[in-house]
Formats: sequence, structure tokens, C-alpha cells
Amino acid sequence: MNNFTFYSPTYFVFGKDQECETGKYVKRFGGSKVLIHYGGGSVVRSGLLDRVKASLDKEGISYVELGGVQPNPRSGLVYEGIDLCRKEGVDFILAVGGGSTIDSSKAIAAGTVYDGDFWDYYMGKPVVDALPIGTVLTIAAAGSEGSPDSVITKEEGMFKRGASGEGFRPKFSILNPALTQTLPAFQTAAGVADIMAHLFERYFTTTKDVEVTDRVIEGLLLTMINEAPKVIANPNDYEARANIMWAGMMAHNNCCGVGRAQDWASHDIEHELSAVYDCAHGAGLAVVFPAWMTYNMHHDVMRFAQLAVRVWGCQMDFANPEKTAKAGIEALRRFFKSIGMPGNFEELGAKEEDIEMMAHTACYGNGRTGHIGGFASLSEEDVANIYRLML
Amino acid sequence: MNNFTFYSPTYFVFGKDQECETGKYVKRFGGSKVLIHYGGGSVVRSGLLDRVKASLDKEGISYVELGGVQPNPRSGLVYEGIDLCRKEGVDFILAVGGGSTIDSSKAIAAGTVYDGDFWDYYMGKPVVDALPIGTVLTIAAAGSEGSPDSVITKEEGMFKRGASGEGFRPKFSILNPALTQTLPAFQTAAGVADIMAHLFERYFTTTKDVEVTDRVIEGLLLTMINEAPKVIANPNDYEARANIMWAGMMAHNNCCGVGRAQDWASHDIEHELSAVYDCAHGAGLAVVFPAWMTYNMHHDVMRFAQLAVRVWGCQMDFANPEKTAKAGIEALRRFFKSIGMPGNFEELGAKEEDIEMMAHTACYGNGRTGHIGGFASLSEEDVANIYRLML
Repeated sequence: MNNFTFYSPTYFVFGKDQECETGKYVKRFGGSKVLIHYGGGSVVRSGLLDRVKASLDKEGISYVELGGVQPNPRSGLVYEGIDLCRKEGVDFILAVGGGSTIDSSKAIAAGTVYDGDFWDYYMGKPVVDALPIGTVLTIAAAGSEGSPDSVITKEEGMFKRGASGEGFRPKFSILNPALTQTLPAFQTAAGVADIMAHLFERYFTTTKDVEVTDRVIEGLLLTMINEAPKVIANPNDYEARANIMWAGMMAHNNCCGVGRAQDWASHDIEHELSAVYDCAHGAGLAVVFPAWMTYNMHHDVMRFAQLAVRVWGCQMDFANPEKTAKAGIEALRRFFKSIGMPGNFEELGAKEEDIEMMAHTACYGNGRTGHIGGFASLSEEDVANIYRLML
Repeated sequence: MNNFTFYSPTYFVFGKDQECETGKYVKRFGGSKVLIHYGGGSVVRSGLLDRVKASLDKEGISYVELGGVQPNPRSGLVYEGIDLCRKEGVDFILAVGGGSTIDSSKAIAAGTVYDGDFWDYYMGKPVVDALPIGTVLTIAAAGSEGSPDSVITKEEGMFKRGASGEGFRPKFSILNPALTQTLPAFQTAAGVADIMAHLFERYFTTTKDVEVTDRVIEGLLLTMINEAPKVIANPNDYEARANIMWAGMMAHNNCCGVGRAQDWASHDIEHELSAVYDCAHGAGLAVVFPAWMTYNMHHDVMRFAQLAVRVWGCQMDFANPEKTAKAGIEALRRFFKSIGMPGNFEELGAKEEDIEMMAHTACYGNGRTGHIGGFASLSEEDVANIYRLML
């Protein structure tokens, strides 16, 4: 196991009606003038925003609002948020929404207290200082509620890039599974795919002897496989929603990724898809992962076989472990299909003619130097080949 | 799943040689005058204490020392530590040792800033204020390095009781698996039993639909079952030590116990054993748990069968699930024996004639009102019957 540090100081508040306590937690973590940041109409229509505002009013906390976050959140709104926070003297950012809203909030939180262009962080500068952030989560997916990460798309060039640092860990996150019950099935399933992808990115490692993190990842994957079909069948299954929501946090706060090399090429490969076609990130990942696995299986067949046996319940073929490894990948493909995820470029709305451009941007865009991935180091040609497996 | 909050703000520093950075972390978390608290000679003989002091010297941090913590740490030394901290103006407590040292440090940290008797906390007062605590861990066992808990034995009456609260979460914990390589096999194995017990206490629940925490607990148990025999066979197996050490933290920081009723009767039953016979806590738990399981299996046979199948690899007997449940308990018994743990009263050094006294103290001592346990509510008679199963 590699040396590591792990620091997840977020205060998680989980369960029914907890959003009505938002004001209490903003106060506890020092907020007195809040930016409420959110996306489209659903948080307004559902009454969630009103409940959050009422809880702030109750504590005598003043606030300004900025809505309009889109999926794959854009730099333009971040700049707008930074200006607003500076003008209004905001000292706390409250994200009410999903991963896109939280990621946009993180960018605003860092940008507001930084003299330069916030995009510097997305070009690799570690995030240390940022305004304190709280979240009220509305979809189990990105894990941004407990992570030190944020992904933003720069509108000039449509570059989608991530930033990271301790300043991005939310002070508190409110997770009420009931808030996810109104999500359309497609978004729920895309969230499931995103959570599973965060686990796969960590599972595929070159680090030996990482039993504890292997086993926790496998346990979280088994949870997703058991619980996801329940919420697709019955969107109001609170218990299944709750299991998925906590798994989503644990999948990405890195408690199961510590001490091991991780991969993350699939995220880079997917980011090009959602940057170019504006598809749901999780839907993109559902298409990318079986292709990435098929292409890279030969680097460590036994690890893929282990996943197939322990998580998908495949029988181990001791004479031919590669068959077991492949059976696991096919099980994943069937699973994503069963919850309504796309399975190829066509279903995703992607186009073959863009493959070379996307492979190039994935490997060279925004300061990258030609190879991506920690488990298998992929060249531009490899990435293009992986895209072709999705046709 | 029940509503819950989860807050684990400890900064974990994991890996080889990390104790040499202790001073840096004391500084980061605001310490300027430190009490170094430790147990017996091993941290001195091994040179660990010198390395820790050198790292404090390097940062210009002054310190006083208090050694002499015993297993099952006593109230007497806590009072001594409180006096010393007040006299010397200590503002940070640094525990160098295992669970006993950390628990004693926590008691001193709370007692120093409290006007009353620190034992009030061990009678049920929640711990809010305490001096900041850092730890350098030398045994994977108690999980105190990441938990809000502490257990102390009051010398008058030999009452062993726990206290809990956010003030008890360490600011940082340094986990170097190499420091555990010099432990005697018995202590290593007792640590393993303690970690597994923390998982069982959470696993046996009356809360329905807790798949995510079930699966994580099972993953951590599988880790222990795979890794423990390696370190018993080869004490210098750093990788196995590392897996056990991280599992030990995750087993008890409550990330896998949230949202579910927990049991904890077995800990209460064991606390009487280690209070009366001063046996190793983990060794006591290794004797208690199979007996507790046998006695309480009928409350939820399918949960015991689930554990047997998923963790011990037993074949499910669909015609007679109780047989599967029992096979799992027998597998646990064999496992504890295989790593050198005692299996009954005699091997533990406990005496049949004390059973009624211990059962009474477990159920009525220190303000308890007659029943213990969250999965199965146990009377004094039940507890005595469980002790008898250990004969």
C-alpha cells in the first residue's frame, strides 16, 4: 500500500426532512451572508428552495441567489457568481442541487477569494483557499458532496477539466434521499453509472496488496447492483435511495481509494463526450467503461476476473481466467442496459467522425502531455481505439 | 435507514516513517505546548518516542511527558495527567501508543478543560470541549485513532465505562503499519479480534434495508479474515499490517455503522471480564462473541446466515437456514482459535464463581437500568447465561 493522507472533514447530515435544518448548519460553520446557488426549475417547483430559505430566515442569515447551473456546468456562470459574491460580500456558498451545482459552487468559492482567473485551478493549481461551502444534495451521483473535486467546462473551446484541493471539501452536506425520489429514471440511472464509475476508477490499480480498499469497493458495487434496480422499478423506494445515496458519498470521498494508484482515463475519455455532445456524464461513463475494460483487460486479467467473481457472481474459469474476466464485463454491459443506460455512440448521440478530435483533446488538451490513465497508460491512438469500441 | 449525522474530521497520515512528521501536524492543528502520553517501555525501547520528540523539537514545540498507561487504562493516571496539563499550561495532547493510551489521552484532554470530575463524561455526559488530540498509533485494534470514543476503568470498584462525543475525535492520527510489526503475536491477534468485534457490534441490527453498511462491514470482515493469518505467520508482512490498520480505522469511525441500530452488549459483557481479570480486551471479545451469537441467533436467523454465507463462504442451507447460521458461528470460533485467541473462561483466566457478580454489574453498574444490547435486549439472567456458554 502506498503512503497517503486522508482528510474528509465534511459534516454529513443524512435523512428525511434534514434540509429544513440548513440554516442551523450554515450558522455552525460560520456563514452570515450566503450565496444560494442552484440549477433549473425543479428545486424551485418542488418547494425545496423555499424550505432552505425558510431555514436561513429562521437563523437570521441573509442571502443572495444565483440559479441557472446547467449539467456540465460552465465557466460563464462561475464568473458571474464570483462577481456577485464580491459585490455582495458573501462569506458562504450554499449549493442546492446535484454535482453540477456543487461543482459550480466550488469554483465560485475558490474564485471569489483568488486574485487571478479561477480557471488556473482547473489547469492544475491545488485549491487551498476558498469560501466555506455547504450542500443540499438532490441526486446521488457525482459524490461532490464529500469530495475535494470539481469539474467545470470552459466555454471557449468547450474544455471540460477538473480541479481539486482541500478547500473544496464542503463544511457540511445534507443528504435527504427523499429529495431524489422525483428524479426521472434516466437521471437516476445516470447517477448510478457515475457512482459505479468512481468505484471502477479506483478498483483498477497497479498497486499490489490492497485488500481492504478492494473489499470496500466491491461492497459498494454490490450495493449499487442490488439497490439500483429497485429504484428503477419503484422511484419512491426511500430505503433503496438511501443506500445508493450513502454509497455515492463513500464511492468518492476517497476512503476506498487511498494508498493505491487509480486510473481515471475513463473519466477523461467521457469528459470529451459530454463536452462535445452535452450528454449526461453518467450516461457517457456507461458507454465508456465496458469499452475501456475490454481494451485494457490484458494488463491484469486476474483483477478483472476477481471483479467478475466477487461482484458479478461469475463462476471462476480456472482453466481460462480471461473468459471469467470477459463475463464480468458483459455482466456490467447488461446491467447498464437493464437500468436504461445507452450502450454505444449512437444511443449516446455521439459521432464517429469526431473520434480523432476527441482522442487528441483527451490526451493533449489543456496542458496534457500525450498519455492518460494510471492503470493502463493510454496514447491518443489507444483512446481513439477505445472510442471505436463504442460504435 | 435511520436519519443520522456523520462527522469524522480527523486528518489521517498513513504509511512508512510518517511519525517523523508528527511535529508538523501538531503545529498545523494549533499545538504549542504538548503532553506526550504513552504506556510502557516499548515506545521508548523502539526509539519511537525519540523520533516523535525530534519532530517536535524540529518545529520548536515544547512538551512534557507522562508515561505509564496500562492496558485497560485507569482513572488514577488520568487525574495525574489533568493536574500536569493544568500546571504546565498544556494546549495539545499527543498520544503515542495503542487504544489504551489514546483513550487515556482523550480523558485527560476533556478533564483538563472541565470544572467537574472527568468521570462525569463516563457516566453519560457528552464530550463537547476537550484539548485537541493527536495520535501516533502503535497497534491496529481499538479504532480510537478515528473514533469519538474512550473507555476508562475507575479504580474504585473497577468499573470500566465508555464516554463519547465530538471533542474526542483526534485532530490528526499517524498510522504507520511498520510500527505494529514488533508486536507479540498475541497482541496482534487480540487487535484483530477487537476490530472484528467493532464490525459485529454494528452488523447485528434490527434496522431493515441497510445494504450499504452491511456490504461495507462484510468487506472489512473479509479483509480481516484474509490478512490476519498472514501477519500471524509473518509479523513483518507490512502489506497485511497496512490492510489491517486501515480496516481497523474504518471499522470504528462509524462510516459503516451509520443509520442503523447497533448492539454493543458484547462489549459491555467483555468490559466486566477485562475489569475483573485485566485480560486483553480483544482476547475477551474473542471469547464473548461466539457465545453471544449462539445465545441470540434465534432473534434473526437469516442475518446470521447472511454473515455465514457472505463472509465465511458457507453454503446456504435453504431447507434449514439455522444450520448455516451455526456454521458461521463455528467458523468464527475456529478462526479465533487459529490466530491464537482463547476460546473459553479457563483459557482467558476467568472464573465461574464471578458470573453472577459480573452479570449484575454489566446490567446495573454505573447507572444502568437492567438491560443491555440494541439487537437483543439482555437481562441480567441472559448475560449470566451467555457467560455460562463460555465455560
